[in-house]
Formats: sequence, structure tokens, C-alpha cells
Amino acid sequence: MKVKLICHTPDPERTVAMSARLCYSAVGAEQLVEKMSPDQVAKLVDKIVEMGHLSTFEHVSFTFAVEGVSRVLTHQLVRHRIASYSQQSQRYVKEHDFEYIVPPSVAANPQAAARFAAVMDQVRAAYDELAALGVHQEDARYVLANATETKIVVTMNARSLLHFFELRCCARAQWEIRRLADAMLVEVRKVAPHLFRKAGPTCVTQGLCGEGDLTCGRLDSLNKQGGR
Amino acid sequence: MKVKLICHTPDPERTVAMSARLCYSAVGAEQLVEKMSPDQVAKLVDKIVEMGHLSTFEHVSFTFAVEGVSRVLTHQLVRHRIASYSQQSQRYVKEHDFEYIVPPSVAANPQAAARFAAVMDQVRAAYDELAALGVHQEDARYVLANATETKIVVTMNARSLLHFFELRCCARAQWEIRRLADAMLVEVRKVAPHLFRKAGPTCVTQGLCGEGDLTCGRLDSLNKQGGR
Amino acid sequence: MKVKLICHTPDPERTVAMSARLCYSAVGAEQLVEKMSPDQVAKLVDKIVEMGHLSTFEHVSFTFAVEGVSRVLTHQLVRHRIASYSQQSQRYVKEHDFEYIVPPSVAANPQAAARFAAVMDQVRAAYDELAALGVHQEDARYVLANATETKIVVTMNARSLLHFFELRCCARAQWEIRRLADAMLVEVRKVAPHLFRKAGPTCVTQGLCGEGDLTCGRLDSLNKQGGR
Amino acid sequence: MKVKLICHTPDPERTVAMSARLCYSAVGAEQLVEKMSPDQVAKLVDKIVEMGHLSTFEHVSFTFAVEGVSRVLTHQLVRHRIASYSQQSQRYVKEHDFEYIVPPSVAANPQAAARFAAVMDQVRAAYDELAALGVHQEDARYVLANATETKIVVTMNARSLLHFFELRCCARAQWEIRRLADAMLVEVRKVAPHLFRKAGPTCVTQGLCGEGDLTCGRLDSLNKQGGR
Repeated sequence: MKVKLICHTPDPERTVAMSARLCYSAVGAEQLVEKMSPDQVAKLVDKIVEMGHLSTFEHVSFTFAVEGVSRVLTHQLVRHRIASYSQQSQRYVKEHDFEYIVPPSVAANPQAAARFAAVMDQVRAAYDELAALGVHQEDARYVLANATETKIVVTMNARSLLHFFELRCCARAQWEIRRLADAMLVEVRKVAPHLFRKAGPTCVTQGLCGEGDLTCGRLDSLNKQGGR
Repeated sequence: MKVKLICHTPDPERTVAMSARLCYSAVGAEQLVEKMSPDQVAKLVDKIVEMGHLSTFEHVSFTFAVEGVSRVLTHQLVRHRIASYSQQSQRYVKEHDFEYIVPPSVAANPQAAARFAAVMDQVRAAYDELAALGVHQEDARYVLANATETKIVVTMNARSLLHFFELRCCARAQWEIRRLADAMLVEVRKVAPHLFRKAGPTCVTQGLCGEGDLTCGRLDSLNKQGGR
Repeated sequence: MKVKLICHTPDPERTVAMSARLCYSAVGAEQLVEKMSPDQVAKLVDKIVEMGHLSTFEHVSFTFAVEGVSRVLTHQLVRHRIASYSQQSQRYVKEHDFEYIVPPSVAANPQAAARFAAVMDQVRAAYDELAALGVHQEDARYVLANATETKIVVTMNARSLLHFFELRCCARAQWEIRRLADAMLVEVRKVAPHLFRKAGPTCVTQGLCGEGDLTCGRLDSLNKQGGR
Repeated sequence: MKVKLICHTPDPERTVAMSARLCYSAVGAEQLVEKMSPDQVAKLVDKIVEMGHLSTFEHVSFTFAVEGVSRVLTHQLVRHRIASYSQQSQRYVKEHDFEYIVPPSVAANPQAAARFAAVMDQVRAAYDELAALGVHQEDARYVLANATETKIVVTMNARSLLHFFELRCCARAQWEIRRLADAMLVEVRKVAPHLFRKAGPTCVTQGLCGEGDLTCGRLDSLNKQGGR
């Protein structure tokens, strides 16, 4: 999996801080931009996070190029609706030599890994034969596996990202999208550490777990450690 | 493919008409509901469609149960973001005896159809063997094909549906989602004929085609027939 | 203020329960609809609420006709974006005899109430004179007060409503929109008591308050009462 | 009115072009970023506009600080839901010395202008007296006029902006929001001329008018000039 933050709103924390100040100040936006020191920006962002008043987080967006992920992942990813996507099309791009994603639980089991690789070869052969029989790639792709590698460009604003991290950094999320979420969080923290200081699943951010009997135990161990 | 309209806002055209009247009238909503005859409702809805002022169409929603479709279709479908979805999960439901969708271009070609069926058997065998080797179904499903049958519940409001029909009843959409869109349109026209009177691709509704060189020729033939 | 639930998805709790079951069952949607008893529906909805897996709540929508509210309220209301609105237009409807909303803090203070009524008369006179001077109503309305009565039709799905109730039933919300939210909650509980069993501000639903120093004290008193 | 583009996704046209290329190419996103010349970017963006395949336009966002506008304008503006807003609050900011917006039709008529100014003075006096009587500013503001000046920060992505320009650069939009839309269009064209080359009302972009009998005549005069 390759996750690259290819662009984002410049100076995202200042943009958020300035927007927040505007709501509670008689001064205009332009003056606010100039007046705040980096330290004031950081403090105000921290306070916004603490209060949970996240509407100003929407003013800043982050765009990622994601490669080396399966269509299992992208089918889950695009369910997040406050986001924008451009995905490599299986209708228009021929998958003559497709890569595929192997789940760690398969990779760790030599017999399963061999079986997995074998069926991928069978699928590849079927795809090529269907093409040779004159089936257009948009229909030939019906035989392609969920594991088939795809590429996608994703844009989310910071508020939507926080929601995404809450759901997808959770241990209940599937391993692949959790890896993506973790990698995206690493990236955005490099450029906006205060915005994403408290990002993550609710056990980490609120000391709460909504998973009931399905809980992973992380909250318990956080509580035993005496803090989050 | 099985497409069933399982519920919708009652009396959808009256709801739209009443909301539209409220915007331009000093009278309250309650009185408006009672006052309009079915004929007045139909005329007002026709006028709203004509003017393209579709915001009132959002007040009415339609929920469909869709079965017998592939994950090719659902991956495209869930890209429509002004909509709500509940899909049968491959993480939690075991696909021991999965059905699959055969594209018409494959079904029409006996050699291709045989090849297609053969690889589906190979995939099924691999899925079962991975399960037998202790791989959890959420990872075993990585070998499942795009063609695998899935079920989904979809809710869209009438405005979002019009946009969906515009894109997906178009000849450029893939056959499977076009079939779904056509079936959904048949269903909603039964309960709200005036709301969806002009629904469809832009060649039908506006006499325009945005597909450039990729055009299907439908607009030309509509124009030759002397009308749309 | 007059708040009327004018329509909603029929049998909303069954629709939610059926959608939820589909996700975790190999059985089709149609069979699920028929199979569940009212008691099974109620239990499943309660469990969904408990787990916080609210995506299935989006399949059901509720439409309200709201009258006797100010434009202070509607300017706040329409900030909720996962919703649909049709509002009485001040551009197209002449406000010759407008009603206005008096805040309780003004009504409770005779001097303030008299001052308030007097300035409303001055505004009405100015509006009429501007009209007499040939100013079109869409411009004459620039003198109209925030307090001017308006009417609006609002549609939200159940998930968006839960979010709305969380923010707007909170003591930190302004009195007018809190009244609206409280009235809407009363209405939806009549037709879907299980869906909205735990609706309200986070102090009530989660035992949490995000308002920091601005807190109203309700959480403390809930805690002292030994339960929520 | 003061409209300032305070930040935006860097190199917006390259971001759009790269996202579009990814969909139709087997090459990864990273390589695509580096490979395209400015001329290739411009040509691809032009083609995307021509085809109307605008989903890639969502990857780039633009943030504006807007001052010197009325609450008539912001009440209309915030109806655009695919956008983010931070507005100066009348609950938390005291309007002791508020400015107000005078419609051109009023300004051009000396009698109307005098009447307008007089009622603004009456409103100001009432607001101050209510405050002196102990009414909190969040309730005192009920007397404030629609014309009262406000400040707002707005963020929209390029696709949402195109829709905004289509509706609000139209002669049927009210003068104030049309001025805002025109000013925003000037700003974004400076940094992304190809993205917004065809932006504007449908008479300009498609040679169509949806306003029926309410049409302004612009389409007719465009047609007479022999081109758009």
C-alpha cells in the first residue's frame, strides 16, 4: 500500500483558527489572518478540538493518492460520502497484468498463500481468454477478484477525516482500510499536528466504545494504563 | 435482478406540490395540503419539472430492495452520495454457495459462458478451501469475483433519483446499472408519474448529449424522428 | 410556533430493522420484511441504537411543516445540510401584514416588550412606505427584522434528526430552535418511539458534555440523580 | 462588499488533470503528477469541461472571506449545502455599531434612501435600549434588520462552485448574491482560468434557459449576437 498526501489547503491550522475567530469577533477576516501568531493559532485549534466545535475544520482539505489497495478496500472507502474520489476504471483500463492484495492472515499461512496465488492465476487466465473470445474488458472484469489492485485519489476535509479516523482506525474495521486510515493519519499529522492531535477511534478520543460485546478490549487496557 | 420499491413517502406528488406552493404563498402549509385537488397537484408538479426548480423534489424519498446484482454494480452505485445504502456484508455473511451475475455479452457466447462458469467454480473451491484452512470469511472473500451476487437496500429522494436516471439510464452507463436504473424508473413512475415524467438521460430530457465522440447516436435518431 | 409532522416513511421502524437485518443475513430483503414481528422489530432497533450503528436510520425520512418562527431560527436551521427545505420567500410574498416573534426574555419585561412592539411598527411603516415609493418587495424586505415570522417545510432522515436533536435540544442552543427541536422530537416519538428513544443532547444520551466552561449544569444534576 | 480568496488547493488545474488521468491510465498517481506539462494540463481540463465529467473538479477547494454583505445574502448563501461556512455570530458579537447594506434600487431613490436610513436609526436605538433594559444580545438581535452587515468565510470545491455560479450569476438571482457570485468568479478565474472557463448561468454555458416566462432576455440577445 502506498499512501501519499499530494496536496492540501496551505497553512491549514491558520485557516481553521481564522475562521473560528471570525465567528466570535467584530474584526474582519483579513485582519484576523495577519494578526495571529503561530502560538495563538495552535492554542485556538487545541481549544476547538477540546470543545468539539468542528465546523471550521471543514475549510481545509487533504488529497491523497492511494495505490496498492484492493477493491475490497475501495468499496468500503467510497461509502464515506463527505469526500471526493477518482478511481482507476476497470471499464477503461485493461487489467492484463493485474496485481493483487494478499490478506496478512493468508500470507502467514503457507498453504493458504499457495491456494490464493493459484486461484489468482486461474482468474488471470480466464480474464485473458474472455478477452481473446471477444468479450469487452468492462464485462471480462466480472471474473476479477476483490483482491485486484486498484488506485484511487481521495479528498476529504479535516472534519470528514476525523470521522473517517474514528471509524476506520478502530480495531473493528477490516485490516486493510485500517492500514489506510493509519497511514493517512500519519500524513496529515505531519502538516497539521494540532488539527489531528485527538484523532482516532472513540476509545482513544472519548474513552467510549460503541461496539458492545464485539469490543476489542483496547478501552479496558487504556483504562488500566490510567489514561488515554 | 430483482428490484422492489419497498416504501416511499406517502402521496409524493402532493407533498412536492404543497412545499412548492408554500414558497410563493402567504398561506400556511397545513391549509395548502387540504386545498389542492389531484388535478392542481399534477399541474403544479408538471410546471416545477418544466422550470427545473427541483429543490421541492427532495421532500419525498423512495426505498428499493435490490437483489441479484453484482458487486461491479454496487461499487458503481454507492458512488452516488446523496443516497443511503445498506448492503449485505461479505465480512459477516458466509458466501458458501454464492450466486454470480453473467454479463449478457458472455451469456450470448457459449465458449465464453463456459469459461466464465468454470472460473466461478474454481473461485468457489478456493473460497471453501481457504475457509477450511482457517482463513476468516472477511479475508477469504478477497478471492471472490466482481460477479458475485449481492443484495442492497437503497434510498434516494426524487431529486437525487432524477440525477441518477440522467447518468445511469444513459447508453454510456454499463449494462447492469442501466438495467437497475431502468427498473427503478418503472417502479417510481407507478406511484409518481408526474414527478418522473421527464426522467432519463439528457438526450431525452434536454436534447443534449455530453458524451462528445463517445455518443451512442440516440440523440441523432431522436432528432430524425422529429421530436423527443 | 406550530410544528406538524405532515408525512413520513410508512412503518419507519420496520424499514430500519429490515435494512439492518439484510446486512447480516443471507436471506433477501423481501422475506425479511414479512418475517419480523413487531416485537422483533423493536428489539432490533433498540440494539442498533445501543451500538450506534445508525446508517440504517437514513432509510426513513420525516417531513415537518413549521410556522410561527422567526428568520433567526430559519437562518440557523438551514445550516443543517443533511436536510431539505422549502421556505416562504420574502422575494415573492409581500409582507404587508407580517407577524413577528417576541423572545420570552423580552415578553417577560414589560418595558422591553413595549419597545420591541414599537420598533416593529416603525419597521412595518418603513416597509410599506418603501413599497409606495416603488421599491420592489425583494429590496424593501431589507428593512424587515430578524423577528419577522416565516414558514418552512423541513425534511430530515432519522440519522440527521438524531444529530439535530443532539445539537439543538442542548441548553446551549438558542431558545427558539430548541423549542422547535423539542417539538419535532415529540412528534417523531409518536410514530417511531424506539428510533428516538435515546435522542437528545449528549449529556442525556452519553453522559458527556462538550461545552466546557459554558456547560449548563444539566449533566451534573443528571449525575446527582443517579442516572440518565 | 469585499470578497477575498484567502486560500485554495495549490496548483488546482494540475490536481484535477492528474485525478482525471488516473481513471483512464494504468500508471500511478505519483508519476502522473510529474509527467504532465502545463499545456497538457490545460488541454485535459478543457476537455473535461467540454464533456461535463466534473467529478474530478471536487478535489480542489477555494476559501473566501466575505465582508460587507447583508443577512439577506447569507440566508440565501447557506442554502448551498455542498459547502462550508463560518459566520460572524449575532449571538456572541454585540452589534453596537452595526453597518447595513442599502439595495441599489433604494440608493438610487433619494426619498427611499432617506426612509431606509431613518428606520435603520430607529432599529439601532431599539437594539441599544433593549440591551440597556437587560435583554441579552442574542434576543435583542431579533429587532435587527435583514440589511445588517455580516461577515462569512465560505469554502466550496470547484464542482460546487460551478453549480453556484450557474444559479447565482443568473439574472434571476437577487442583485446582492449575484454580485457575490460574480466577484467570486473573477477571483477563481485568476488562479484556475481553465477550470472556470465556461462558468456562469446556463444561457451562457449551454444556450438554455430554465426560467420560462420569467426569462431575462439574455439568451435571446446572445443568440442574436450569433454566438455565445
